[in-house]
Amino acid sequence: MRRTGEHLHGGYIYGTPVRYDFSANLNPLGMPESVRKAAKDAIDRSGCYPDPFCGALTDRLRELWGVRSDMIVTGNGADDLIYRIVYALKPKRAVIITPTFTEYAAALEKIDCEICEHSLSEENGFLLDDTVLDKLTDDTDMLFLCSPNNPTGRLVDPCLLNRIVKACERGIYLVLDECFIELAENGDSCSLNTADLNYCTIILRAFTKTYAMAGLRLGYAVFGSSDAALSVQLAGQHWSVSVPAQAAGLAALDEREYVETARKMIIREREYLSDGFKALGFTVFPSDANFILCSADTEDKAQRLENGLLGQGIAIRNCWNFSGLGERYFRIAVRPHNENEALICAAERCVESWTEL
Amino acid sequence: MRRTGEHLHGGYIYGTPVRYDFSANLNPLGMPESVRKAAKDAIDRSGCYPDPFCGALTDRLRELWGVRSDMIVTGNGADDLIYRIVYALKPKRAVIITPTFTEYAAALEKIDCEICEHSLSEENGFLLDDTVLDKLTDDTDMLFLCSPNNPTGRLVDPCLLNRIVKACERGIYLVLDECFIELAENGDSCSLNTADLNYCTIILRAFTKTYAMAGLRLGYAVFGSSDAALSVQLAGQHWSVSVPAQAAGLAALDEREYVETARKMIIREREYLSDGFKALGFTVFPSDANFILCSADTEDKAQRLENGLLGQGIAIRNCWNFSGLGERYFRIAVRPHNENEALICAAERCVESWTEL
Repeated sequence: MRRTGEHLHGGYIYGTPVRYDFSANLNPLGMPESVRKAAKDAIDRSGCYPDPFCGALTDRLRELWGVRSDMIVTGNGADDLIYRIVYALKPKRAVIITPTFTEYAAALEKIDCEICEHSLSEENGFLLDDTVLDKLTDDTDMLFLCSPNNPTGRLVDPCLLNRIVKACERGIYLVLDECFIELAENGDSCSLNTADLNYCTIILRAFTKTYAMAGLRLGYAVFGSSDAALSVQLAGQHWSVSVPAQAAGLAALDEREYVETARKMIIREREYLSDGFKALGFTVFPSDANFILCSADTEDKAQRLENGLLGQGIAIRNCWNFSGLGERYFRIAVRPHNENEALICAAERCVESWTEL
Repeated sequence: MRRTGEHLHGGYIYGTPVRYDFSANLNPLGMPESVRKAAKDAIDRSGCYPDPFCGALTDRLRELWGVRSDMIVTGNGADDLIYRIVYALKPKRAVIITPTFTEYAAALEKIDCEICEHSLSEENGFLLDDTVLDKLTDDTDMLFLCSPNNPTGRLVDPCLLNRIVKACERGIYLVLDECFIELAENGDSCSLNTADLNYCTIILRAFTKTYAMAGLRLGYAVFGSSDAALSVQLAGQHWSVSVPAQAAGLAALDEREYVETARKMIIREREYLSDGFKALGFTVFPSDANFILCSADTEDKAQRLENGLLGQGIAIRNCWNFSGLGERYFRIAVRPHNENEALICAAERCVESWTEL
């Protein structure tokens, strides 16, 4: 199968018509009405430049996290911040986990950083274990950690996380990507506490996923060091967050119940989807997140599933470009029940078609 | 006067209340209704990721410019593209004109680029002349040129521009910032033709200014080389332009008459403002753009004017941080007549107050 830029990530719905999108890992409840309204109202104020410091939003985040404003940097989505962090802090050697979100390596390659991969073991359900600590050598400058990890869906154990934070304290920037943690089962207890931040810690969060506002672009980073925060703030343009995104973010922070409702739905529906795909003969890996990693026993079957579903207006994310995975693996987002039912039915039709041959 | 991050650029209206903002150089007609509507409607589609390739918008720009799609890169405002260009093309030595938009130097400093300044002469009304060609030495990798130049308002003479384009052809990336050219008198005849593009040419354009949609963030670059374009595209995140910005941009491209009306109004009102400030004893430099550079005979007067106006709810842009200028200089945007009248009246009150002393 020919893969192009459109297949680099999930969520590309601008080619073949897509009725149900399981390829992007967004809150299955969709954008809250309050967020939608705030963004629309903000269009009327978008004739002016945005506040480059996202003052009102940063104030709210400061209260939520209990840190100073100068330790928070907002960005045009978390992905914007990944590039800013790399450009600002210029690591010479960085450790990434594989498989993981591909943009860490993409950003690091831009500055010719040496990338050291730490492979998760499929036998171990892609769970991170303490062998990662051996990779944190004296010449390491940065570690990217995603919890829950995309695309494997596993949280980093909080005890292990604290050991990693300590190990990084001697001068390794730990970029802890928690973009999916608010939708994760036990996410709260696995998130890094502000009290555990040190000079080298950077926590990434995205409104994109938690509040299904990917089209508006808003993320932020909480730093353990205001020096690092300032340097990241200055590593890109002055006005990175649009007026509607700032307004939407402010409204979103009041939507705690919506997030809680989504989290409960995700737990229930994830089980439903997992059972369904297992029954169809696929391998389903355990997940703490709002998405599930699966595999077929051959590349051919995974591709036929992907194409067969797309023919029925349903997109999933093939994992062809995740280092450590390949065409045999695919990722499905957890969606509302009616969509999940439609996915299982459509997948059944695909499997039937190749069983009949 | 204590200057902070809020004073780095014009358009910061989030501190002291501002009734009329002359500090940001936006189309005085404000955001067209069609653009506002398109952006609002697009909020309903912002639960999904944006098209990373801005397909529909790029198609329209391709037609307008008569270039291939792979020679156009869209960004989260032109400022986003300035950083992407610098990070992607990594110049070791770059020439900038002074005074000019401060973000060129800010971006170049991030990669420790050697910056060679070419100073415009105040006696010559800050007009660029052919002495700039002497600065284009064999070890120069990039030249930033802004036409009309911010904050001086002068267009680059088209003959000189063509000589510069030719001189850069041997391997100097020419970043030609035409963000204000669509609002400039004779802008069309001073813009670089697509036919004159070569491998090293990059033209920057912003929807921000032309269509007064600064809060939505949208700019683009037209490249003479698809290799350079691809490298700039990949130098930042995958989804840099939001769903509302893409929709707004598409709608804006149909607003040719609105731009023409604005241009005529700017010519008329620029003269009105220039006459007014001259009558008040300020030096007013000639401008082709939608803004005017002025100076007071002392720093003290310029600061008192700025503070006095702000006390009356009117913001202007002091030029303290433009290399080659300083606190004595200020920039005023050309606004609708009633606002310009209010500015002149308010400035009269300021001048009267210090004449009485």
